[in-house]
Amino acid sequence: MTEAAELERLQTPVRAGLEQVNQRLADIAARMPEILRPVAEVLAGGGKRLRPLLLLLSAGDQREAPDGAVALATAVEAVHIASLIHDDVIDEAEQRRGQASTAAALGQRQAVLAGDYLAAIAYQEVQTAGLPGAGEILATAVVKMTLAEVKAVANAGRLLPEAEYLEVIAGKTAALFEAAAHLGALAAGASDGIVERMRTYGRSLGLAFQIRDDLLDLYGDSKQLGKPVGRDLVGGIYTLPIIFAADQPQGAEVRDLLAQLRVRPDEGGLAERIADLARRLGGKAYAEGQMRRYADQALAAIPDLPTRDHLRDLARYVVSRDS
Amino acid sequence: MTEAAELERLQTPVRAGLEQVNQRLADIAARMPEILRPVAEVLAGGGKRLRPLLLLLSAGDQREAPDGAVALATAVEAVHIASLIHDDVIDEAEQRRGQASTAAALGQRQAVLAGDYLAAIAYQEVQTAGLPGAGEILATAVVKMTLAEVKAVANAGRLLPEAEYLEVIAGKTAALFEAAAHLGALAAGASDGIVERMRTYGRSLGLAFQIRDDLLDLYGDSKQLGKPVGRDLVGGIYTLPIIFAADQPQGAEVRDLLAQLRVRPDEGGLAERIADLARRLGGKAYAEGQMRRYADQALAAIPDLPTRDHLRDLARYVVSRDS
Repeated sequence: MTEAAELERLQTPVRAGLEQVNQRLADIAARMPEILRPVAEVLAGGGKRLRPLLLLLSAGDQREAPDGAVALATAVEAVHIASLIHDDVIDEAEQRRGQASTAAALGQRQAVLAGDYLAAIAYQEVQTAGLPGAGEILATAVVKMTLAEVKAVANAGRLLPEAEYLEVIAGKTAALFEAAAHLGALAAGASDGIVERMRTYGRSLGLAFQIRDDLLDLYGDSKQLGKPVGRDLVGGIYTLPIIFAADQPQGAEVRDLLAQLRVRPDEGGLAERIADLARRLGGKAYAEGQMRRYADQALAAIPDLPTRDHLRDLARYVVSRDS
Repeated sequence: MTEAAELERLQTPVRAGLEQVNQRLADIAARMPEILRPVAEVLAGGGKRLRPLLLLLSAGDQREAPDGAVALATAVEAVHIASLIHDDVIDEAEQRRGQASTAAALGQRQAVLAGDYLAAIAYQEVQTAGLPGAGEILATAVVKMTLAEVKAVANAGRLLPEAEYLEVIAGKTAALFEAAAHLGALAAGASDGIVERMRTYGRSLGLAFQIRDDLLDLYGDSKQLGKPVGRDLVGGIYTLPIIFAADQPQGAEVRDLLAQLRVRPDEGGLAERIADLARRLGGKAYAEGQMRRYADQALAAIPDLPTRDHLRDLARYVVSRDS
């Protein structure tokens, strides 16, 4: 099965809810002023909608999504897209999803404002859900996300210990996955036990997802990804395969090449050489092992929901995807 | 009476609440990672706390601020400071309150994240207040603020018609003033009629405040302001005195000089010449008249609260302040 077909299959039980999420995002996009058209296009234009999918699957298998779940899923996706827009400002990234980044299309100033605007829209959406505590769950996820990004930016160009790398990706990615699963379970009125299991599922899934993302940045196919490979490396963000490799007895060469890349970030082939070396030193295999460990934690946490098979397959999809 | 003494007098009925707001902001600052110290210093370091003052005065005269009002006032101030930080990123402003701007101290990337972080903290604060609808009121104010800034940035270097200038300042400044008054009245359990009057008061006060701010940017004293004069002009933001002057029969010279300033923004004395010319053409007097008109609207809206005299004096302070 192709990846796109697999994703579609995963969406089956919550198709109606996802369509409503897409409709709400399109409505938000339609209300934006003309000048924010690049943001409107990103909002309305798709993406995998993994966080809304996770939220709706966490709310269980229903023809109709429970009251509020659609608004919450919309909010979570809006927060995600707002963070992508600000990440692009921060990374000065030129490409995102195969197109010029929103920041590049809008200019840095408007991109800062557009991210702020979308984040505020997300909080408006959350309020319409009328679920007590939902605003705080979302805000807490954003606090974790921004603190992790602050730490990542502060440590650009430095090799972090594995524990600190994990702390960064826990905030950067897993916090919002956890919030999505948490909100979905709460919206469905799940018991405390199920809510806790779903939070664990979401958090572990998020960690596995981000390690996969980091692997794809080093070893993926730029065409499939819609963005250049090695961007993290060139930006001074050293992920698990590199961290592991640099820590091996022969790791000095990795450190050497990283130092060269910091001085000459535009030198062709250098990022590829580092990625290759990290693979030979076992960094790729190690990161894949850690990724599978988190995916297994996610699988072990799945409660006995009607959507349990889809949650299982979502975890498998996340760690096997190539884009 | 000095301006500082007058501000202190205005704070009298809500001193206890303001001290709690300061304590909460200091607590938030203390929890921040070391790398965000410049933000922590801004948060804990004072400022006039006009929005918390407005919120607490809107909640009426009480020894103890009503439940939640302190958290709401903290949230409103956090949103305000977050927007200042992002404004600095947008303006690439070097100075704010007489010190290097947070964006300059942190770097642009961290400043974007720091603003996001503080905004999320604000939403956490709002949730702790437990006031239904409060999150939506705050989010709606932020939506208006960001849309107005988007419009302002998009129109930098252009003379807007007065109606559009008013639309920009209504979003940029008056929306958060209105939200502060609205939240304060709601927290105190005010009747619908009083809530509506306080919203009108807050909105009108915000418009008067921003026109005063714009006047000070052109005609104020940079030492008292703690920031260079003429910054808006140089940045291509043309405010009411300029808009009015350019629209006069002899306005062509204003347009001419603005065109020169756009080409040579660093030319010494050019901004001052434009400000002087606008004054001679009646722009300063016209803007002062409009400012007083909004202040009068604010005064007329004040309901019969125990804090009504302080609300009246706050409106007078806002339009007479020199910093």
